[in-house]
Amino acid sequence: MNLPMIRYVLGWTLAIEGAFMALPCLVALLYGEAAGWWFVPVALGALLAGGLMVWRKPADSMIYVREGCVATALSWIVLSLVGCLPFWLSGEIPFFLDAVFETVSGFTTTGASILSDVEALSRCMLFWRSFTHWLGGMGVLVFLLMVLQMPGGSRMNLMRAESPGPSVGKLKPKVRQTARILYLIYLGMTVLEVALLLAGGMPLFDALCTSFGSAGTGGFGIKNDSMASYSAYIQWVTTIFILLFGTNFTFYYLLLLRRWKQALGMEEVRLYFVIVLASVGVIVAQLCAGGAAFGKTLRDAAFQVASIITTTGFTTVDFNQWPQTSRTILVVLMFIGACAGSTGGGIKVSRIGILCKTLFKELHSYVVPKSVRKVELDGKPLNHEVVRGVNVFLVSYLLIFTLSVLLVSLDGTDMVTNFTAVAATFNNIGPGLELVGPTGNFGHFTPFAKVVLCFDMLAGRLELFPVLLLFYPPTWKGALRHARRAAA
Amino acid sequence: MNLPMIRYVLGWTLAIEGAFMALPCLVALLYGEAAGWWFVPVALGALLAGGLMVWRKPADSMIYVREGCVATALSWIVLSLVGCLPFWLSGEIPFFLDAVFETVSGFTTTGASILSDVEALSRCMLFWRSFTHWLGGMGVLVFLLMVLQMPGGSRMNLMRAESPGPSVGKLKPKVRQTARILYLIYLGMTVLEVALLLAGGMPLFDALCTSFGSAGTGGFGIKNDSMASYSAYIQWVTTIFILLFGTNFTFYYLLLLRRWKQALGMEEVRLYFVIVLASVGVIVAQLCAGGAAFGKTLRDAAFQVASIITTTGFTTVDFNQWPQTSRTILVVLMFIGACAGSTGGGIKVSRIGILCKTLFKELHSYVVPKSVRKVELDGKPLNHEVVRGVNVFLVSYLLIFTLSVLLVSLDGTDMVTNFTAVAATFNNIGPGLELVGPTGNFGHFTPFAKVVLCFDMLAGRLELFPVLLLFYPPTWKGALRHARRAAA
Repeated sequence: MNLPMIRYVLGWTLAIEGAFMALPCLVALLYGEAAGWWFVPVALGALLAGGLMVWRKPADSMIYVREGCVATALSWIVLSLVGCLPFWLSGEIPFFLDAVFETVSGFTTTGASILSDVEALSRCMLFWRSFTHWLGGMGVLVFLLMVLQMPGGSRMNLMRAESPGPSVGKLKPKVRQTARILYLIYLGMTVLEVALLLAGGMPLFDALCTSFGSAGTGGFGIKNDSMASYSAYIQWVTTIFILLFGTNFTFYYLLLLRRWKQALGMEEVRLYFVIVLASVGVIVAQLCAGGAAFGKTLRDAAFQVASIITTTGFTTVDFNQWPQTSRTILVVLMFIGACAGSTGGGIKVSRIGILCKTLFKELHSYVVPKSVRKVELDGKPLNHEVVRGVNVFLVSYLLIFTLSVLLVSLDGTDMVTNFTAVAATFNNIGPGLELVGPTGNFGHFTPFAKVVLCFDMLAGRLELFPVLLLFYPPTWKGALRHARRAAA
Repeated sequence: MNLPMIRYVLGWTLAIEGAFMALPCLVALLYGEAAGWWFVPVALGALLAGGLMVWRKPADSMIYVREGCVATALSWIVLSLVGCLPFWLSGEIPFFLDAVFETVSGFTTTGASILSDVEALSRCMLFWRSFTHWLGGMGVLVFLLMVLQMPGGSRMNLMRAESPGPSVGKLKPKVRQTARILYLIYLGMTVLEVALLLAGGMPLFDALCTSFGSAGTGGFGIKNDSMASYSAYIQWVTTIFILLFGTNFTFYYLLLLRRWKQALGMEEVRLYFVIVLASVGVIVAQLCAGGAAFGKTLRDAAFQVASIITTTGFTTVDFNQWPQTSRTILVVLMFIGACAGSTGGGIKVSRIGILCKTLFKELHSYVVPKSVRKVELDGKPLNHEVVRGVNVFLVSYLLIFTLSVLLVSLDGTDMVTNFTAVAATFNNIGPGLELVGPTGNFGHFTPFAKVVLCFDMLAGRLELFPVLLLFYPPTWKGALRHARRAAA
């Protein structure tokens, strides 16, 4: 394993994080908050350490699949460990593990919080907390890919490890260009959301934090009631934008190229909106049957469905109080998740689509035994490796999920809490049901359970394998011996 | 589709069911119960209808995969609809749908009951209720295969549709011989259990019903407290026998052939016992940490774990009251299920094993990208089709499961009840948690939810595809036209 190159990637990650900490410093200056000083030593430390680590570029700068995964997983861990320091040092989150949980939750765009009183945080901390969503949404390494020089294939191996979905859609032949286009679309849409929220009378600070949270499909609110107290206009704008950020970004790229037909024909995007509309329909029907007013119910249902399927996690009502079928629909949406190639989490709509197709293929083979019907997506037959990959993903997903629920159950909390706490963190959503519902938080868990949930957030964001590889002994085989030889 | 041959198979199924109804008649005679008379018209009707249906053997007696699946699924539906008549006609189960639910639960060896007072049933009804477990455990069509003449491949297509597991292990080159050996082992072990239970002082009637319930891994009890009031000896004997009936029957066949090494080397059987021991260990540890006495706790944990993993569903304690981790372990065991080629349900240990192996293969491919590591079982590389089949099974399983939970949630009962009710019926176990826990029953569900759960029991017992095919329109394409042409 190319350890020097992993060191190099980690160094750049640290440096970028340090540089971005200038933003909360600025916020602290504007609002005259003393807590902002804590960002200075952390940022300088990160820049210094990062600078030292990238001082000497390794002679062999090749990154293979294994290095790509390990570098990505370690980067995200380092990001979180450094990013949590201001929270902890300032004393605004008194316990280190809680600060780590909050930051992992931020970068992985989960939005699960251990805080019971968000509004007690200073503005610069709130800003940083929301900004981690924005950075984590599109991916820190994808950002890195725009600036770094690396030999052929290396970039792809990093990109693949960090990007969500069954297969990485390269928009351009060069990964660097793809990364740039992705970040441009991302930035453009974020700016547009900020503008529209400002137009609705939202203060700039709120608009920025809300947009970071929607863009990354993260969901950290800056109010204790998440988004409940904002106007209907602001709630609708947010609903639409989180749905848009949960859409496959290839869709926007095709729109930019004016390939309308191809864009509108994307099966994943269509299925995604069908699921959203069907879920909203059923929930509205059930709530209105219970006597609720149509207008507000439609807004609430649309907001909650959009928030949960895109794994954002903002809320405007306590859906924990909804009737069982509506609650269950939300739990199912938690697992489906957003589109591949978006900033959302979960299993991803395209994976669900591919899996359903294999089922119909199987049924067809019972009726016509000799039929060979390849699974197709967007009119093209899918590579066998992609189908296999989706199946393996599902298996790994279920195993990690089950093990996590078992481990979290050691806390002794009720089954719905445990189950949805794991679902909400593993799928990078935020709120679950019961104790971790919209009005609850994750503060009551024991340190052990918090560590398990942190693992789940990271594994969920990086789509399992990069994080699993860290715990697979053969990954490290030869790495240490190799390092010793290199040092000699 | 060969509709005449499906008619022929259904006819034989009816005739066999009618013949077996002689047994509860005998019980009624012995105990002088008037309710037993109801078995006479039903049995005669079934024999007559069955006789008429098999009167003319179709000229083309070939059964292809599609016919095998459809014939199997329809047979099980007919079995249940006829088998429930005595319960309903006698008024001991006043509602028809409840009687259907109870009988489907019996034949599919689920053991979920709508009865709150089992002891109010007459003995002949209790006997028939438990005997459906015995018939359903090894399979009615497998029984049929011993007596019926059919062209090559036809038997295999029927056997495959009814037998649980990722691939049907033919013990002998001829399916007919395999079916005979299976039923001989099955009968032998049942007789042995009856003998051992009698030796423990259990009354003959109780011993027979308990053995039917364990052999089919069904779980209908004849007492309101299931097995709680029986002696420790009887509980241990039952524990051991349900574990044995949940073991792959190939294991016993190999033992009979004295191929010890091959038998003891069976990976599925080893994994099965490892899971059982580990689960018992953790549950005993957690209960004893809470202050429970070791001896009784060990017995309770072993009984409940054996009962749940084999999907039997007998209980000796109300595990609903256990701490969360122990409860969660039981829920996980519900899904794992017993060995393939046993009478138990669930996903099956071998499928879990194969799925875990694909995960490790995937991780390995990250470390050594060019490696092609075939998934092996018992030292032999697995056919690609088997691995694919296991994956498709998992997908279909999850889809049906999710849809069922959503539909059952319309009842408005709590999420743990809905979730475990579906888990308990779909995996053919019996009791779940909360309202459907060991002290509860399924009587409170609405008719709609009961129909969904009946579907789940059948789909679970027949491993999804035979039942799914009934609802897949292309299955019937041409069948009616073909039938009309044949009639002309």
